[in-house]
Amino acid sequence: MKIPFEERPQGSKDVMWRYSQNPVIDRYAIPSSNSIFNSAVVPFEDGFAGVFRCDNKSVQMNIFAGFSKDGINWDIEHSPIVFEAGNTEMIESEYKYDPRVVKIDDKYWITWCNGYHGPTIGIGYTYDFKTFYQCENAFLPFNRNGVLFPEKIDGKYAMLSRPSDNGHTPFGDIYISYSPDMKYWGEHRNVMKVTPFPESAWQCTKIGAGSVSIKTDEGWLMFYHGVITTCNGFRYSMGAAILDLENPSKVLYRTQPYLLAPAAPYELAGDVPNVVFPCAALHEGNKVAVYYGAADTCVAMAFGYIDEIIEFTKKNSIK
Amino acid sequence: MKIPFEERPQGSKDVMWRYSQNPVIDRYAIPSSNSIFNSAVVPFEDGFAGVFRCDNKSVQMNIFAGFSKDGINWDIEHSPIVFEAGNTEMIESEYKYDPRVVKIDDKYWITWCNGYHGPTIGIGYTYDFKTFYQCENAFLPFNRNGVLFPEKIDGKYAMLSRPSDNGHTPFGDIYISYSPDMKYWGEHRNVMKVTPFPESAWQCTKIGAGSVSIKTDEGWLMFYHGVITTCNGFRYSMGAAILDLENPSKVLYRTQPYLLAPAAPYELAGDVPNVVFPCAALHEGNKVAVYYGAADTCVAMAFGYIDEIIEFTKKNSIK
Amino acid sequence: MKIPFEERPQGSKDVMWRYSQNPVIDRYAIPSSNSIFNSAVVPFEDGFAGVFRCDNKSVQMNIFAGFSKDGINWDIEHSPIVFEAGNTEMIESEYKYDPRVVKIDDKYWITWCNGYHGPTIGIGYTYDFKTFYQCENAFLPFNRNGVLFPEKIDGKYAMLSRPSDNGHTPFGDIYISYSPDMKYWGEHRNVMKVTPFPESAWQCTKIGAGSVSIKTDEGWLMFYHGVITTCNGFRYSMGAAILDLENPSKVLYRTQPYLLAPAAPYELAGDVPNVVFPCAALHEGNKVAVYYGAADTCVAMAFGYIDEIIEFTKKNSIK
Amino acid sequence: MKIPFEERPQGSKDVMWRYSQNPVIDRYAIPSSNSIFNSAVVPFEDGFAGVFRCDNKSVQMNIFAGFSKDGINWDIEHSPIVFEAGNTEMIESEYKYDPRVVKIDDKYWITWCNGYHGPTIGIGYTYDFKTFYQCENAFLPFNRNGVLFPEKIDGKYAMLSRPSDNGHTPFGDIYISYSPDMKYWGEHRNVMKVTPFPESAWQCTKIGAGSVSIKTDEGWLMFYHGVITTCNGFRYSMGAAILDLENPSKVLYRTQPYLLAPAAPYELAGDVPNVVFPCAALHEGNKVAVYYGAADTCVAMAFGYIDEIIEFTKKNSIK
Amino acid sequence: MKIPFEERPQGSKDVMWRYSQNPVIDRYAIPSSNSIFNSAVVPFEDGFAGVFRCDNKSVQMNIFAGFSKDGINWDIEHSPIVFEAGNTEMIESEYKYDPRVVKIDDKYWITWCNGYHGPTIGIGYTYDFKTFYQCENAFLPFNRNGVLFPEKIDGKYAMLSRPSDNGHTPFGDIYISYSPDMKYWGEHRNVMKVTPFPESAWQCTKIGAGSVSIKTDEGWLMFYHGVITTCNGFRYSMGAAILDLENPSKVLYRTQPYLLAPAAPYELAGDVPNVVFPCAALHEGNKVAVYYGAADTCVAMAFGYIDEIIEFTKKNSIK
Amino acid sequence: MKIPFEERPQGSKDVMWRYSQNPVIDRYAIPSSNSIFNSAVVPFEDGFAGVFRCDNKSVQMNIFAGFSKDGINWDIEHSPIVFEAGNTEMIESEYKYDPRVVKIDDKYWITWCNGYHGPTIGIGYTYDFKTFYQCENAFLPFNRNGVLFPEKIDGKYAMLSRPSDNGHTPFGDIYISYSPDMKYWGEHRNVMKVTPFPESAWQCTKIGAGSVSIKTDEGWLMFYHGVITTCNGFRYSMGAAILDLENPSKVLYRTQPYLLAPAAPYELAGDVPNVVFPCAALHEGNKVAVYYGAADTCVAMAFGYIDEIIEFTKKNSIK
Repeated sequence: MKIPFEERPQGSKDVMWRYSQNPVIDRYAIPSSNSIFNSAVVPFEDGFAGVFRCDNKSVQMNIFAGFSKDGINWDIEHSPIVFEAGNTEMIESEYKYDPRVVKIDDKYWITWCNGYHGPTIGIGYTYDFKTFYQCENAFLPFNRNGVLFPEKIDGKYAMLSRPSDNGHTPFGDIYISYSPDMKYWGEHRNVMKVTPFPESAWQCTKIGAGSVSIKTDEGWLMFYHGVITTCNGFRYSMGAAILDLENPSKVLYRTQPYLLAPAAPYELAGDVPNVVFPCAALHEGNKVAVYYGAADTCVAMAFGYIDEIIEFTKKNSIK
Repeated sequence: MKIPFEERPQGSKDVMWRYSQNPVIDRYAIPSSNSIFNSAVVPFEDGFAGVFRCDNKSVQMNIFAGFSKDGINWDIEHSPIVFEAGNTEMIESEYKYDPRVVKIDDKYWITWCNGYHGPTIGIGYTYDFKTFYQCENAFLPFNRNGVLFPEKIDGKYAMLSRPSDNGHTPFGDIYISYSPDMKYWGEHRNVMKVTPFPESAWQCTKIGAGSVSIKTDEGWLMFYHGVITTCNGFRYSMGAAILDLENPSKVLYRTQPYLLAPAAPYELAGDVPNVVFPCAALHEGNKVAVYYGAADTCVAMAFGYIDEIIEFTKKNSIK
Repeated sequence: MKIPFEERPQGSKDVMWRYSQNPVIDRYAIPSSNSIFNSAVVPFEDGFAGVFRCDNKSVQMNIFAGFSKDGINWDIEHSPIVFEAGNTEMIESEYKYDPRVVKIDDKYWITWCNGYHGPTIGIGYTYDFKTFYQCENAFLPFNRNGVLFPEKIDGKYAMLSRPSDNGHTPFGDIYISYSPDMKYWGEHRNVMKVTPFPESAWQCTKIGAGSVSIKTDEGWLMFYHGVITTCNGFRYSMGAAILDLENPSKVLYRTQPYLLAPAAPYELAGDVPNVVFPCAALHEGNKVAVYYGAADTCVAMAFGYIDEIIEFTKKNSIK
Repeated sequence: MKIPFEERPQGSKDVMWRYSQNPVIDRYAIPSSNSIFNSAVVPFEDGFAGVFRCDNKSVQMNIFAGFSKDGINWDIEHSPIVFEAGNTEMIESEYKYDPRVVKIDDKYWITWCNGYHGPTIGIGYTYDFKTFYQCENAFLPFNRNGVLFPEKIDGKYAMLSRPSDNGHTPFGDIYISYSPDMKYWGEHRNVMKVTPFPESAWQCTKIGAGSVSIKTDEGWLMFYHGVITTCNGFRYSMGAAILDLENPSKVLYRTQPYLLAPAAPYELAGDVPNVVFPCAALHEGNKVAVYYGAADTCVAMAFGYIDEIIEFTKKNSIK
Repeated sequence: MKIPFEERPQGSKDVMWRYSQNPVIDRYAIPSSNSIFNSAVVPFEDGFAGVFRCDNKSVQMNIFAGFSKDGINWDIEHSPIVFEAGNTEMIESEYKYDPRVVKIDDKYWITWCNGYHGPTIGIGYTYDFKTFYQCENAFLPFNRNGVLFPEKIDGKYAMLSRPSDNGHTPFGDIYISYSPDMKYWGEHRNVMKVTPFPESAWQCTKIGAGSVSIKTDEGWLMFYHGVITTCNGFRYSMGAAILDLENPSKVLYRTQPYLLAPAAPYELAGDVPNVVFPCAALHEGNKVAVYYGAADTCVAMAFGYIDEIIEFTKKNSIK
Repeated sequence: MKIPFEERPQGSKDVMWRYSQNPVIDRYAIPSSNSIFNSAVVPFEDGFAGVFRCDNKSVQMNIFAGFSKDGINWDIEHSPIVFEAGNTEMIESEYKYDPRVVKIDDKYWITWCNGYHGPTIGIGYTYDFKTFYQCENAFLPFNRNGVLFPEKIDGKYAMLSRPSDNGHTPFGDIYISYSPDMKYWGEHRNVMKVTPFPESAWQCTKIGAGSVSIKTDEGWLMFYHGVITTCNGFRYSMGAAILDLENPSKVLYRTQPYLLAPAAPYELAGDVPNVVFPCAALHEGNKVAVYYGAADTCVAMAFGYIDEIIEFTKKNSIK
C-alpha cells in the first residue's frame, strides 16, 4: 500500500495543501448520484476501500462501498450498502450519511449518521466490504459525527460524537463515550467545546470529529471541522487536535488557526457553499492524506506531514 | 415555427439536458436591468413572444414584453408592460414578477405574482403583445406561481397556484382553482404537497407550478420547482408531474428524482445561488424546450423528449 | 325577541361595559369540552340560536349548535354539527373553529375557520339549526375570520376575511371579497390595515373582523379584534369600524382607542391569557350585546348603545 | 402506609380530580425557595419520602430530600442533596431538576435532569434518604424526563427519556433505553411520538414521561405530560399510556383526551402559566395519587381509581 | 416630608416586603389610561411629585406629572407632559415611557425612553413640575432604562443605561456614561453584565437600572431589574447592587438572589404577566420605599431598611 | 500624488466601473491572513497609506497599516496596529474591523468597529502610520460603520454611524453625531433610513456609510452600502448620497438604483457571497477611485467621474 500524496507546492508555506487534481470524486461519479462527499476510506487488501455518501437525484442520503488501487481513482458501487442484522434485529434506517471507517482487530467498523426518528449514530461492520452487519445505534437521537478510535482504550471501545438537535443545529461540542461491547454505551465526557468568537471564530458555532484519530507519540491526532455562522450561513473549516493517549477526553493541543478553509472554487460553490468537511485520513510514515467533502458536492484531498502538523498544532494551540 | 432545440450531448444519459450556449439571456440584456430571469415564452406569429421578469438596478420587479424569431435571440422592450383596465378598474400593482403566458382561444393570458398588499396572482391578457389588459387578481394575498391551463376544463378556466405567506415562505403546496369567467374563483383543491424529507428531499420545503401544462395522452405534463432548505438557504430544482386530463387535481405520476438541479456555474452563483426555476416550456412534436431562471439572475434553457420525460416520470414516480 | 342587556354600571364612563355575570358560558359547559369561546349567536324563532366553538379534551376544535331563550342561558348540543353536502361534494374538514352566523334571506349562513390543508374559510347554511349544508370553501388557505355581510351588496354576497399563514400568524389585515353565488369569489380588496405602533399599538400586529356588520345610517358598524405583541405574547382587544354602506371596502371611521381590552380575571388567565375576541353582536333598537371569547377559554358579553359607539368611533377615529 | 386520597367530588364525572386543598406544597415552603414543583415521592418506612425540586431565590435549580407521614404535610430539608461518588468519580452537576424516585430491590433510585454541558439524565441512589450516591449520567446531552421502570425487564434496567435540545425544546418524543448495570445504556427505542395536531392537540408539540410506571394486569400504566404551543407559549397537560409489560417500547393504549389540564388558579398563573406536570404517583390497591408541578411554582395532587383510568385509556385511545 | 412606609409583616423574614394595600395606583387611575406603571417619584415641596407612565387606551405611551401629599394617594394630570425646547430645538418624540426623576442642584431631571427612530434615552428637566424642558437625547438608538446619578461625579453628570435593539430585546447589560454638560456624552463603560444561568438565572437574559442610586457609606445603592426567559416569555424580578462611590462603573456587591420577584396576583396577571419593574426609591433615614411597575399594568410598592438591604447584598453577592 | 484610475471600458454606459485587474488585494496577501477586505486608504506623503482589515486564519478580526506608491500595489504590515493611550486610558478592544481613515488638520483619524462588550465605534489617530493613539469609543454598543467627516462642521467633529444589535443585524439606518472634542458625542440625528421594498429593494434591509464624504459644490458626496435580504442571505450593494454641506443630516439626493452590485466572480463567491462593501474613496480632480471589500474576502476597486456620479444621483434620486 502507498497512500496518495503530493509534495507541498512551490512557494507554499501552508501546513497542509490541496491536491492539484481536486476534486478526486465528482458529484456525478455514479449514475444515480446528485453529489458524493463526506466519505471515508481505509487501507484494504492491496489498495483501499471506502464508504461513500452518495445522495441520489431524489436527494436521499445513503452510503455506498467503493474500491481503489491508488486512493484516487475509485470504483463506487452503484447500489447502496445493504446491512444484515449484527448485534440486534432492529436495523431501521430512514437514511444514512457522513460515514467513517476504521479497522479494529479483524473488523472494519463503519459509523454513520443514521436516521432513526431523527439523526443518531449508526454502527456496522464488515470483514470484506461485501457483507455488512448493522449493530445497535450507539446513542439516542439527536447525534452526528460519531467517530471510533482505532483501538480499545482501557479495554473499551471509544467513540467521539457531537450531540445535536433535529435540524441545522446551531451549536455542538465533541464528546467521548465508551462501550465494553459495542452495544451499551456510557461514561460520556465532554472533550472539546466551541471557542469564544474573539479567540477563534471559525470554530465558534459548532465542531465535530472528522477523521479517525491517528496514534502518535504526542497523542491522538484528530482532524475535526469547525463552523462559523456568517450572515449568509455556515462556513465549515478544518483544524486538528491532539488528545491524550490514555485519556482521550483530555485535549492536549488544538489549533487556534484552521488548517484548511474554503477558498478553492469547488469549496466555495456547490450544493452548500463554503464547506470543507474532513471524514478520513490515510497515513503512511510521516505523510497524511485527508479526504474531505467540498461544498457538500464532491470529494477532495489535502496533504501534509504528520510531524509538521503536530508541531503546528502545539505552537498554535488555544490555551 | 420551430422551437429551439439541441440534441442530447454525447454520453449523457440524463432525461433532460442543458443548452450548450446557456445562459440565453444575460442579466444585463436591457439597459436598466439588474437581472432577467423567471420568464415565460409562447409561440407568436412566425416566431415567439415572451414576458420577462427584469429587475432593474433599483431592484424593482417588473415584467417586460419581448420577441424572438428563434426563441434564443430575444429583443426585450426597454420599458415594462403598461396595462389598461380589463375586467376591473382596480389594477393596482406595487410590483410584478415571475410571469407565465398561455394562449387560450384568441387571447394570450399572462399571470404573474402581483404586489397588492402582499404578493398575489395577477391576471392580464393581450392579443398582440402591444396592448395589455389587466383583470381582477385571482386570489387574496398571499399567493405565488399562478399558472393557467391552456384550455378550459369542464367549461371553466383552471389555475394552479401556491398559497404562501408574505416573506421567504418556508412552506408551500400546489393547489388548483376554477373560474367560470376569469373574475371569480373557487373550487379550490390541494393538488400536490411537499414530500417527506427521506423520500425526496429536493422538494420537501415547498413546491410550485412552473410551466403551463402540456396536454399529452398520458395526462397534463407539468414542470414544477421543488425546494430544499440547506444550512445555507434554499435550493430550487425542477421535476415533472402528470395530472389527470379531466380532473387535474388528481396527480397520476410525479418525479421522485429531480429532472434538473443547480450544478452549472450560472446556477450555482448569482443574486440567489442554487436556483433552477422553470417558467415556460415550448413544445413541438416530441420535443420540449424548458425556459428556467438560473440563480435569480439570468435565463437558461433545457431540452428533452416528451415521451422520455413521461416514461421517466412514470417509472420514477413517488407512490 | 329581547336581547340580553344590562345598563351601564354606576360611575362608569366607558362606551362599552362588561356583563356583571360574565362569563356567560363556562369552559366545561358541555361534558366533552375543554373550553367554549369565540362563538356566534343570532335571533332564532322566539329566542336565539348559536354556533359554538367547543374544543374537546383532546383539544380538537369543532363547532356545535346551541339554543337559548334569553341569550344568556344556553343549551349547547353535546355533539358537533354534522354537515351534509351543499353546493359541493367536497366537504373535507380537519377541524372547525371561530364560527360566525348571519341570516340572509331565508338561510342562516355559517362561516368558520375550516381545516383543509391549513386554515381557510368554510361556508355552510341551515334553515333550522338541525340540518346543516356545507358549501365550497371561500378561499385558498391560509385564511381566518371570514365574516359575511347580512345582505347582498350590489347583488353579490360580500365577506370580510383575514389572509394569514399556517401558524400563529404575526401579521394580518382585513380584506373584502364578493361572490355572485357563494361558490366563486373575487374582487378582493384591502379594507383595513394594522396601525403604526405609535398611533394605536393595540392593533399593530394583526386585526380581524369580529361580529357581523350592523347596518346603521352612518354605515356598517363592525366590531373587530386587534392584536399587539408584548414580550410575553399576543394581547387581543376589541375596537369598532364604520364601513361605507355602498362600498364597504371604504373605511369611514375606525377607533384609535380600543372599546374593550383584557382586564377582567377571566380575560387575563385561561388557556391563552389576555384575549378579548368578539364574534357576534345582537342588536335591538339602540342596544347592542357583543359576545366575545375570553382567554380562549369561555364566552363573555359586553354591552353598549349603538349611537354612543358610533359617536365614539367618529370622534376617536384614526385619520 | 396509607396514600393520601380524597373521593371524587359530588357531581364530577372526571376520571381524575384535584385535591381540594391544593396546592399541597407552597412555593415558599422552605426559607430559600422561589418555587417548589416537579417533585417525586415514594413510600418510605412508615410514611413517605420525596425528592423535591426547589429553585432558590437566585433561581438556581436543585433537589432536596423531604419526609412526610401522610404524603400531604412535608418536611423538606433546607439544604440540597449532596451526592457521594457512586459508580463513577465524575459527578459534575451544574444544576439538578425534575427528579423522579423509584425503589428497585433494596435501593431508592433517583433520576433527574442533570446539568453537564447541557441537560442530561443524572442517576443516583440512596438507601435511607440521608446518604446519596451519584452514578454515571445515563446519556449524552441533551435529554430530560428520565424515568426508570420499577423493576428490571428481561434482566436489564429500563428507562424512559425525552431527547431534547439545549433550550426550551419545541419538539420531543419518549424513548426507552436499557442497561445491564446502570452504567452503560443501549437498545434505544422510540416509544411514543407527539400526535398530529388535528388528532390530539394538547400533546402535539412534545411529550415526556411523568410518573414511574405502575404494573397492572393490562400493562405498565404511565402518566405523562403533553405540550401544545399556543400563541402565548407552551401549555402542559397530563395523559396516561399503557405499555406492554414485557416489551414496554410497545404502546398498547394512550389517551387521546387529557386526564388533567391547567384550569385551577394555581395552574393558570405562576412562574410559568398553564403547566400541569406529573412526576410521581403513589398507589395503593385501586387508588392512585398523582403529584404534579403546577405553573412551575408549587406542588399539587390529583386522584383517581386505577381501573377507571385504565378503562378510560383503553376506551379513548388514539389509534 | 415623610416617606410612605409599613413595617415588615409578622413572621416575614424577607429583606423587602410588599405594601399591604398594593397596588397603589390602579390601571384606570386617570380617564384615558389603559395602564399606569413603571413610574418615578421624588420628594417635592411638602410632599411628593412624580412622573408616570400612562399608556392610554390607544396603547400610546406617554408620561404624565402627578402630585401626592403622602406618596400613596396620587393626583395624576389627565394630559401628558408637554416639553418646551431645552438645550436643543430638536425635541421629536414618537412616544415616551419608563421615566425616572432625580433632583440635581436646583433642577428635577427626568430621563425616559424616548421614541426617536427607535427607543433611546430622552432627557428633560423642570423646576416646578409645571413647565418642562426637553434636552438632547443622550444616546443614539437603541437604548432603554437611562438613570442619572443624583449628583455629579468628578465634575460630570453620570448616567446608567441599557443598550438594546429595536424590539423585545433578548439581551442587555448596564453601562455608565458621563457628560460635562448634559448634551455630549462619552466615557462609556460596561458596569454589570447578565449572569450565567447556573449562577443566578433570574438575571440571565437582561438587566437594567431601576431606581436612582442612593448614596450610602458603602457605595451607591441601586435597585435594578433582571430578566429570565421562560418557555412562556420574560419574567422580571428586582435585585440590588452597590457601586463604588467614586467610580460607579465598579460593582462592589450585587445580589445573587432577587429581592422581589413576581408572586402577588397583580404581578402574575395583567398586560404582561410576571413583571416586577422598579423605577424609583424614596428613602428617609434607614427606610426605603421602592415603587415598581407590576405586570406592566399598575404601580406597587415594597419596603425595606437600607442597612439590612446593604447587609443582605454584601452577604449574598455574586463573586 | 496621482490616484489609481482607469477609463470607462469601451461600450460601457455604467456610471461607475470595475478595475480591470480586480481584486487589487488578495485574501492571502500577508502570511497570517484568511481574508483582506473592508479597508480604507488615504493620500500619505508621496503616495498612499491605508488601514486594512485582515482576518487571520483563526478568523480573528484586526486592522493593519499598509503603504503604497500607486494605490494598487500595497505593502501591508504583518502585525496588527498596536495603539497607545490617546485621550483615555481605557483602550480595551476584543477585536477591530472595517476601518475608515480621514485626515483632519494634522492628524490621520481612524475609526473602526471596536469590540467592547459588543461592537461599537473605536476612534484613534496617527501622524505617521507608525505610532497610533486610541481614544474613547464614540458610542455605547451596538454600532458599526462609523465614518468621520473630513473637516469640522460648525466647529465640531461630525460622524456618521449605523446603530445595530449584537448579531447579524437585520435593520439599520445612518445617523450623524457631533463632538466638540472627539471624546463626548451628542446631537444625534437620523440621516437616512432604509427604503421601502417596492421603491428600491437593494437598500431595504439596512444601510451604512461607506467612504469618507467628499466635499463638492453640490454637497457632501458619500458612498454607502445597502442590503437586501434574499432567501439565501444578505446581498450588499453600493449607492451614493449627497448631503447638505452645512447641515449634513439633511439628504439632498440619494440613488434609487445602485451604483455597483455583486456580479463579478470575486463578488459572488468567497467567505460571504454577494458583497460589495465600500470603505474609502480617493479623489483627484473629477476622478474618484472607490475601494470596496468583495465577498468579505478581498479588496477591489471601482472608478468614476465625480460630476457624472453627482449628475446620476440627482437624476435618479429617491423622492
